[in-house]
Amino acid sequence: MYGIILAGGSGSRLWPLSRELYPKQLLNLNFDKSLLQSTFERLQKCTSDIVSITNTKHISNVKIQLSELDKNTTVLAEPVAKNTAPAIVLATKYIMQKTNSDPVIIVVPSDHLIKDNEKFISTVKKGEKLAQQGYIVTFGIEPNYPETGYGYINTSDKLSDGYKVKEFVEKPDLETAKKYLEEGTYFWNSGIFMFKASVLSEETKKHAPEIAKISELFDFTNKTEIPFIDFDKMPSISIDYAIMEKSDKIALVKLESDWNDLGSWQSIYDISKKDENGNVFVGHVLDKNSKNSFVYSSSKLVATIGLEDTVIVETEDAILACKKDRTQDVKQIYETLKQKHDNTHLIHKTVYRPWGFYTVIAQGEGFLTKIIHVNKGQKLSVQSHNYRSEHWVVLSGTAKVVLEGKDLILSPGHSVDIPLKAIHSLQNPYEEDLKIIEVQKGDPLIEEDIIRYEDMYGRV
Amino acid sequence: MYGIILAGGSGSRLWPLSRELYPKQLLNLNFDKSLLQSTFERLQKCTSDIVSITNTKHISNVKIQLSELDKNTTVLAEPVAKNTAPAIVLATKYIMQKTNSDPVIIVVPSDHLIKDNEKFISTVKKGEKLAQQGYIVTFGIEPNYPETGYGYINTSDKLSDGYKVKEFVEKPDLETAKKYLEEGTYFWNSGIFMFKASVLSEETKKHAPEIAKISELFDFTNKTEIPFIDFDKMPSISIDYAIMEKSDKIALVKLESDWNDLGSWQSIYDISKKDENGNVFVGHVLDKNSKNSFVYSSSKLVATIGLEDTVIVETEDAILACKKDRTQDVKQIYETLKQKHDNTHLIHKTVYRPWGFYTVIAQGEGFLTKIIHVNKGQKLSVQSHNYRSEHWVVLSGTAKVVLEGKDLILSPGHSVDIPLKAIHSLQNPYEEDLKIIEVQKGDPLIEEDIIRYEDMYGRV
Repeated sequence: MYGIILAGGSGSRLWPLSRELYPKQLLNLNFDKSLLQSTFERLQKCTSDIVSITNTKHISNVKIQLSELDKNTTVLAEPVAKNTAPAIVLATKYIMQKTNSDPVIIVVPSDHLIKDNEKFISTVKKGEKLAQQGYIVTFGIEPNYPETGYGYINTSDKLSDGYKVKEFVEKPDLETAKKYLEEGTYFWNSGIFMFKASVLSEETKKHAPEIAKISELFDFTNKTEIPFIDFDKMPSISIDYAIMEKSDKIALVKLESDWNDLGSWQSIYDISKKDENGNVFVGHVLDKNSKNSFVYSSSKLVATIGLEDTVIVETEDAILACKKDRTQDVKQIYETLKQKHDNTHLIHKTVYRPWGFYTVIAQGEGFLTKIIHVNKGQKLSVQSHNYRSEHWVVLSGTAKVVLEGKDLILSPGHSVDIPLKAIHSLQNPYEEDLKIIEVQKGDPLIEEDIIRYEDMYGRV
Repeated sequence: MYGIILAGGSGSRLWPLSRELYPKQLLNLNFDKSLLQSTFERLQKCTSDIVSITNTKHISNVKIQLSELDKNTTVLAEPVAKNTAPAIVLATKYIMQKTNSDPVIIVVPSDHLIKDNEKFISTVKKGEKLAQQGYIVTFGIEPNYPETGYGYINTSDKLSDGYKVKEFVEKPDLETAKKYLEEGTYFWNSGIFMFKASVLSEETKKHAPEIAKISELFDFTNKTEIPFIDFDKMPSISIDYAIMEKSDKIALVKLESDWNDLGSWQSIYDISKKDENGNVFVGHVLDKNSKNSFVYSSSKLVATIGLEDTVIVETEDAILACKKDRTQDVKQIYETLKQKHDNTHLIHKTVYRPWGFYTVIAQGEGFLTKIIHVNKGQKLSVQSHNYRSEHWVVLSGTAKVVLEGKDLILSPGHSVDIPLKAIHSLQNPYEEDLKIIEVQKGDPLIEEDIIRYEDMYGRV
């Protein structure tokens, strides 16, 4: 069996903790691993052959997180977001070409929460049997209340390990959702699928011929790249619309484990352990008499008094305060910020890089100050800047600085000037993490003002 | 006539905007001046002879704010907080000794809001007449609802410009407050008083002989200092308890102007202009569908969705989220933080100094990083440190650095190392504000590690 992890995603619904460039699957949400890492580990219990596919925007973060679990795992990058159908079809083609075989493949989203791995695995085994029989298998969750935020799948005849699927239906209104719940044949759509590679190929040709045709442009025998020029021709469409709703080979297996899509702060609250007043407090929170509220502090003190059914989420540069039953509207805030080109939708003040991370701590006309954290054994690319000079002061650890071909070793308190256009590299070949202050001077001060000469992460 | 401004105060009720070391009277609360400055300006319309008395903790900030309005104004500093009676008695003694006369004195708190200065002045004129007749005059506010958070004053016989006072009463419960409102003889206690200096002296001798006796230890003929060793002997007691409630010479004048004690975020909300949904938004706020809420952002984005009757106050290092009818409990949060030695009760991340201000932007084991803002024409003291070295990088403006007797002129991007124990001074003799990054290294890194050799603000 092979696994495909879908690791794209936009990050709008858990704003301000998630951002466009740091979406939900990368967050750890107070568990010890991120949702992506947990998904990978869960899938590892079913197969050791896993391919992840993400957007180029996230590839560096996805690779860093997954390499902690498997140094050699494959991550494909879509050059542009085109929803799930093109991603799944291409990842399937990648597996078929690499292995020259026709395996059963399981496709899983990377941003859902499943705690009971054993029951998940037993569901996968049932799905595998049906997939071997030529079905495209979807995993359905038995609804226990009339949720209006999910798509539903209606089933008909019982099969040995599941059901035949009658139809996929859109997010219903409350009345309709109640009816579905009563009828007992409806399931929530988990977004988890299993199929034999050849079955998906055939069904793609039949129901999404355009995608099938464009996918012929790609050849993964000797490479993993997905060229923009070809991929951009793909229609932007979900696997549900493109194939699942049209094919008559769809079966459903009831997902036996727990499942939560963590699609809003309300759902994060729902799965969290509450105190005796129904509150969930994460981080530095001081409360008097609040009830049934969710308060998340990432750095600063959050003091709360007498709140009820309220969500407060504090991050370095943005704070959300929201009635708990309105957490779906967070997406609107995110979209408004995006329209306004307000960067708080896009990135965190702390930005993760393959070598560590940096935080912009001060910014003004002609200057920008960062704290740069270089993980042990890592180095930034050999680079130069056309529009800015830099001044570095070591705070902790030891820095190896290569400046115009000369090596400098700097201890805490030492500093160095990097002139305009000078070729330089910041390196930490030591056993301790390195922290420096960088003061940039110039105009414009933009990340894009960088010429890379060498890079251990392949970014030249 | 003489004026005394009481500029002590703890800053607990408007936390996190007010702090122990930056209390309410120093805040400008979205008006163009601070409450202290507005109080001073209002009093200047009655008299040009004003003495302010504050706690040593606040003297530097009080002086900076008042010198913008009157370079030569007198500010007395209590070495320790002893409530209002000792402060008023000593400030009165100061005025009597300085002027060798027996003027009428008006005493005003510095942290209340009064907008209608003309009606305030006409009230003062009525009060002055009664004070000249030998009364200690208190200003009372006619209650328009049964407030339980204020003390009340009950009046009896009508005088030419006011009423004889029958009794002072504590904060009542709601039933009692309703009764007071019905009876029509009760007023709220504004904390504003007027008296002839000699009358206060006599009444102090009679009703607070201990204070009268200790005040004999002070001599203001050639100095303005209040020595700790003597002042610490004073009982900590309010003027109400010490004298007003006991004296039979108390009259009340009805305050004809508007008045608000700004004693909670609720009262700040009450006086603020609301939008069509009853909301007050200050700073960078993005809202969807909130009602009757108060949201104050001092720096970061605060996004709010569907809040009702809620107060959110965002500051650099602490956030308050509070039901509007529970804003009195902010004091409890403040006290809890104080008990826990959590500095968020004490200071802001940005700390004001006579020469400008600084913000701690990063802090870790063995290092501390500040942005230091030096106002034009100002200089920091000539100083050295026993336990830390410093590294300065100019961000904007020009720095004159005196290091071990040598002058250095540094432009943006330039840096300098200040070694351990080196005698140095940072100066900005230029027309533009100066901004630098300071990286301190050492152990311990505490503000107290400073030896001052020269200081233009008298702090040697």
